Amino acid sequence: MKAESHPDYPPQLASGDTVLQAQNELYAEASVSNIENFVGTTRIPVGLAGPVEVRGGHAQGTFFIPMATTEGTLVASTARGMKVMNECGGVDVRVVRNGGIQRAPVFEFDSIDDALEFTRSINDDWSWIVPVMESTTSHGKMIDIHAWQLGRMVCVRMTMDPGDASGQNMVSISGQRGAEEIVKRYPNIRRFRMGGGLSGEKTPSSVNTLLGRGKAVTASVTIDGDVMHRITRADIADIPRHQQNYSNFAMWGGNQNSHNSIANTIVAMYIACGQDVAATVESRWASNIFEYDQDKNTLRWDVHIPNITAGTVGGGTGLPTQRECLELIDCHGTGKVDRFVELCAVAALANEISFWGALCAHEWIDAHASLKSR
Amino acid sequence: MKAESHPDYPPQLASGDTVLQAQNELYAEASVSNIENFVGTTRIPVGLAGPVEVRGGHAQGTFFIPMATTEGTLVASTARGMKVMNECGGVDVRVVRNGGIQRAPVFEFDSIDDALEFTRSINDDWSWIVPVMESTTSHGKMIDIHAWQLGRMVCVRMTMDPGDASGQNMVSISGQRGAEEIVKRYPNIRRFRMGGGLSGEKTPSSVNTLLGRGKAVTASVTIDGDVMHRITRADIADIPRHQQNYSNFAMWGGNQNSHNSIANTIVAMYIACGQDVAATVESRWASNIFEYDQDKNTLRWDVHIPNITAGTVGGGTGLPTQRECLELIDCHGTGKVDRFVELCAVAALANEISFWGALCAHEWIDAHASLKSR
Amino acid sequence: MKAESHPDYPPQLASGDTVLQAQNELYAEASVSNIENFVGTTRIPVGLAGPVEVRGGHAQGTFFIPMATTEGTLVASTARGMKVMNECGGVDVRVVRNGGIQRAPVFEFDSIDDALEFTRSINDDWSWIVPVMESTTSHGKMIDIHAWQLGRMVCVRMTMDPGDASGQNMVSISGQRGAEEIVKRYPNIRRFRMGGGLSGEKTPSSVNTLLGRGKAVTASVTIDGDVMHRITRADIADIPRHQQNYSNFAMWGGNQNSHNSIANTIVAMYIACGQDVAATVESRWASNIFEYDQDKNTLRWDVHIPNITAGTVGGGTGLPTQRECLELIDCHGTGKVDRFVELCAVAALANEISFWGALCAHEWIDAHASLKSR
Amino acid sequence: MKAESHPDYPPQLASGDTVLQAQNELYAEASVSNIENFVGTTRIPVGLAGPVEVRGGHAQGTFFIPMATTEGTLVASTARGMKVMNECGGVDVRVVRNGGIQRAPVFEFDSIDDALEFTRSINDDWSWIVPVMESTTSHGKMIDIHAWQLGRMVCVRMTMDPGDASGQNMVSISGQRGAEEIVKRYPNIRRFRMGGGLSGEKTPSSVNTLLGRGKAVTASVTIDGDVMHRITRADIADIPRHQQNYSNFAMWGGNQNSHNSIANTIVAMYIACGQDVAATVESRWASNIFEYDQDKNTLRWDVHIPNITAGTVGGGTGLPTQRECLELIDCHGTGKVDRFVELCAVAALANEISFWGALCAHEWIDAHASLKSR
Repeated sequence: MKAESHPDYPPQLASGDTVLQAQNELYAEASVSNIENFVGTTRIPVGLAGPVEVRGGHAQGTFFIPMATTEGTLVASTARGMKVMNECGGVDVRVVRNGGIQRAPVFEFDSIDDALEFTRSINDDWSWIVPVMESTTSHGKMIDIHAWQLGRMVCVRMTMDPGDASGQNMVSISGQRGAEEIVKRYPNIRRFRMGGGLSGEKTPSSVNTLLGRGKAVTASVTIDGDVMHRITRADIADIPRHQQNYSNFAMWGGNQNSHNSIANTIVAMYIACGQDVAATVESRWASNIFEYDQDKNTLRWDVHIPNITAGTVGGGTGLPTQRECLELIDCHGTGKVDRFVELCAVAALANEISFWGALCAHEWIDAHASLKSR
Repeated sequence: MKAESHPDYPPQLASGDTVLQAQNELYAEASVSNIENFVGTTRIPVGLAGPVEVRGGHAQGTFFIPMATTEGTLVASTARGMKVMNECGGVDVRVVRNGGIQRAPVFEFDSIDDALEFTRSINDDWSWIVPVMESTTSHGKMIDIHAWQLGRMVCVRMTMDPGDASGQNMVSISGQRGAEEIVKRYPNIRRFRMGGGLSGEKTPSSVNTLLGRGKAVTASVTIDGDVMHRITRADIADIPRHQQNYSNFAMWGGNQNSHNSIANTIVAMYIACGQDVAATVESRWASNIFEYDQDKNTLRWDVHIPNITAGTVGGGTGLPTQRECLELIDCHGTGKVDRFVELCAVAALANEISFWGALCAHEWIDAHASLKSR
Repeated sequence: MKAESHPDYPPQLASGDTVLQAQNELYAEASVSNIENFVGTTRIPVGLAGPVEVRGGHAQGTFFIPMATTEGTLVASTARGMKVMNECGGVDVRVVRNGGIQRAPVFEFDSIDDALEFTRSINDDWSWIVPVMESTTSHGKMIDIHAWQLGRMVCVRMTMDPGDASGQNMVSISGQRGAEEIVKRYPNIRRFRMGGGLSGEKTPSSVNTLLGRGKAVTASVTIDGDVMHRITRADIADIPRHQQNYSNFAMWGGNQNSHNSIANTIVAMYIACGQDVAATVESRWASNIFEYDQDKNTLRWDVHIPNITAGTVGGGTGLPTQRECLELIDCHGTGKVDRFVELCAVAALANEISFWGALCAHEWIDAHASLKSR
Repeated sequence: MKAESHPDYPPQLASGDTVLQAQNELYAEASVSNIENFVGTTRIPVGLAGPVEVRGGHAQGTFFIPMATTEGTLVASTARGMKVMNECGGVDVRVVRNGGIQRAPVFEFDSIDDALEFTRSINDDWSWIVPVMESTTSHGKMIDIHAWQLGRMVCVRMTMDPGDASGQNMVSISGQRGAEEIVKRYPNIRRFRMGGGLSGEKTPSSVNTLLGRGKAVTASVTIDGDVMHRITRADIADIPRHQQNYSNFAMWGGNQNSHNSIANTIVAMYIACGQDVAATVESRWASNIFEYDQDKNTLRWDVHIPNITAGTVGGGTGLPTQRECLELIDCHGTGKVDRFVELCAVAALANEISFWGALCAHEWIDAHASLKSR
């Protein structure tokens, strides 16, 4: 039964539906391509974290970063971290890998030998699949195809550069075509399924760190100890101590990341800017790298985020408020995705600095303890 | 420098800021407790997935689930899965564990012996911390405190039942007080930091599955093979095959989940309903459990989600549209959080059914292959 | 067909079987309880790593550690690390947790409600299982029983203190009896299987770090920078740098440990001393904890090994050479297992110091680079 | 202080050292290249598991597999699984990937840009390193070099085909030379360390499954339900049920493998046959793949082991008993390593069949329950 033909549809609000359905006409277009059974829009408060001085490969200058959240203090915390950054000379940031976007169908064979022959054949030459897969998209370009054999099963990971789009739909359509073409060419394929566990989509996964997915980006700042202490009351010498403890216990628990707060930042920027918010699950993987210099009283802090999947065209980026948020940081449209990804990393590092500062500010029990333990 | 005192603040939109800042007065209250540097609201399209017939411990009857997303087909896919569920007699769902919410400070000692003595002391009796920690909250109740020793470091995981709130802020304040009390009582503590890697906050982690965090919930439906094939074109016999392949390759890649699409559903419900969306990272862990009965042509499909952190009071739940979305499913206010969590699991299972159906529908290459391989 | 009744049995060596079958009479007893289809003994060279000065909770004094290996340099490397230890005042070591040994059967129910009721019932009161399970062993004592629900499936983790035995067989027999008793008491159990994934046996697993298995032990030494450089040519300032890099890349790859060489040491001691060598897989989990003091030019190095499963009675510990190796360190028989575990940690830390020293000794490219980068 | 110059060296056995030091002259050669501070040999009972009928790519015919263990029932269990295999037509086995052996030094740079430029340069052309690295070995051949950037750090994974040797030492020497050559060519390298976390050595790791290490091998048998029940009392329909439960709980706990007993088999063969036993940690990763056919009452069981590191020359393979054990299966010397690896997989699958059978044989509570639940 369709929702609209159900006797209880649409459900009525006791309070009278005034806000959710307000100005729905602004989102009429969205109801076609971005949502089904459209009933209105939910509204998420947007705050601006900034200013932050950025020296990126693609983002350069002073920025106010739009963050949509209902979690109080998140914007303030990010802004506080940016203040530390600014007083320490600003932040460097670079996109260092274009990991593309993936689909990974599995092909099933009757025998190990058949699976092995298929695996070798695909890995030897996949050039013939390229025109087939690229025929379904005007922007996507194939980067790589690789087959992994696990007994009679072979997972073929297809990687496409989606340009400025996040590309999940693009590669789903293209991957489906590619898989069908593979099936035609290898008649001894017994079954296939479009999902095989090696796409890394919306999962935290070594697949993505090792084989690539989305953009890898590093943001870097050298923090002066006095600045850090004045703004956050934390001692920079405690930051690497925190990392060591956090990492050791996190590894006990199966958490493969040495960071604390990046999901919060990514989610807020993704909601504000029309991204596929569920991709936070893969995009929030990150590693912190520290270099503490006791003599100079500085802490170099790099955050490396290996798998940010984002887009500045398509998806939700064209909706009214989403577009406005992207425009606030000049990240709407073609040629802007690397710029957006760099700003994601900058904001993530800013919040991380502030958050770790807060965790460590309570560390020194009293002055005596502080002196004694040095 | 405060954002508002910066010469470039607020940044101007080329297009004139019409939508982001529309009706900001409706969110005036939000600007106080939910956001800083408030400039407006971003609007996310909301669709209703339903109807779905639910037999829960807390949610019973017919529901239309509000989902906020810009990803086309997500609502339709969830609704399609619900159609399968309805035609197969509806879905059962139960909250089976209240894992509470955690903070996990680390305490550092000079010697292994000191750390051991502290660990034993905390684990022997933590009742004295309870009144201190509960003094900071009117609703939170302590469930558990446990200490883990790793050399000279001891991580103390403090678990509070936050009632109908998601509770992250509640336990942060309470945990800080508890940690300070611990420091007073154990003068040989050398340093402490509030975060220690065993809270499981916003990380995918065995800590959470094994030790608990948020609500554990199972949704269950027995799918008729004919219904599944009619609606999704998939053969139910392929679903467990898909799971086996997906799990094997996913384990290769370090992805510890045997599901595919749950992050999408959780994120959309969380955005619609004023949740802490970044908590999706921990809430999306899930396991599928299948029982295929060839003779009856049925597939029992249970999804178990061990760590949904959610709230129906506090956070963003009181904002205008968020409240309306919660009210659509009668999940706003006190005494409603288990109901909301059950509906999260129902929607997650629905989308999973539809999504796996789509992945498997392309499996049978042709009728001949199908017959041959049976 | 039994091996001995096969026409090709026993297979003949071209070279004439002189060594494998030499002095088989010494192992006649072993052929009854330790092996089947006994044809002889393979011989592994044993070297002694030492002397090492140990200040343990159970092991105190000067030790030469027996290691059985065919990997050249392993004994020498361990001895080199011991030299560093000795010149820095010796090593402290403590057993800090007795995690017991586990079996974890799974019980299957028809409904989520049945599984929930069972889970709560077991967790509320498992005292009635204790006499049943302890009736099968003269030494084992129940420590804990806990049930985890995953949908309709419930895994019951049964933990027994095996005393001075490694205890895998003890708990298998006891667990089987316990499971049968559970089945009698809960008639709505539909099926059960003895293995359920939460025993942590011979798997690297957060189950073990978080819930306990075997003995947790920490060894600790404060290394003087000059001693380290003289013996290994490494700069102690590089050791924490190595850890940070190693951990970050290891987490990318799904390796949840911040150590490098502990499997080698554990295996060699286990082979020499009649342990269940396959238990290395769980016993080799370890975390390094560093505290570098630039002013004092010292590095405190603690290694924490959370899950060493070992025994000094039963298994292979009574065989002639195995017993001799245990006697060399006064670790044979009852009341010795904690002593043995402490020595395992001491040797592991020694080899780790030497190995990391070797990895870092090549770091400084030349004197100029060294000075520049300081 | 050298061990031999210590006043307590060599330590004396109360019992008089008769066995450990017996016939030491047979291992005189070992004391030079395989061990230091040699004092004798420990002796591990060897049993033969077999006969097993093997149809491999390299191993064909009837085999009795030598296993060295002190764990009673291991040989019997493996032999029991072989009996199932034989009665079901024997086992197929194939080596399907030669993953080589790795070292993975880390190179540290001053800036992200420098690290990026280095990463691209290495990945664009590493042919110039090949002659340098191959110059240190007469047998090893370079397969691949790849660089991964993580902020300012770059891990270069160097993969060498070690031929019939296990190759860890070979690639350590070669990798050291390669790293030094890299340092010469890139003067802006600030520091380097030989270990970087992506070698996968002696760690369970997605690095190895995804990027390759050692040999990948699949063994496959189609089991008749009647045979399985007669020999193990297990119902083959329960095997996939066990896998589903085991995998789901194991993923909760961070154990990324869907198998139970493979470490035991690998360890016993490695000890018998002069392998680097600590490599079990990486070699024991495995996935089971099941296809249950209710109509035919058969269960196809494939085990895929992606990372067996083994050798048939060098290391401990030339020692007297080790060589004899290798000769028993015609696996000593050049050109034999794939044969040995295939037999490892065969024995692993055999034990797995027997072990799972034992776990599931206790499943059916009584005939009534059995009938009811079908």
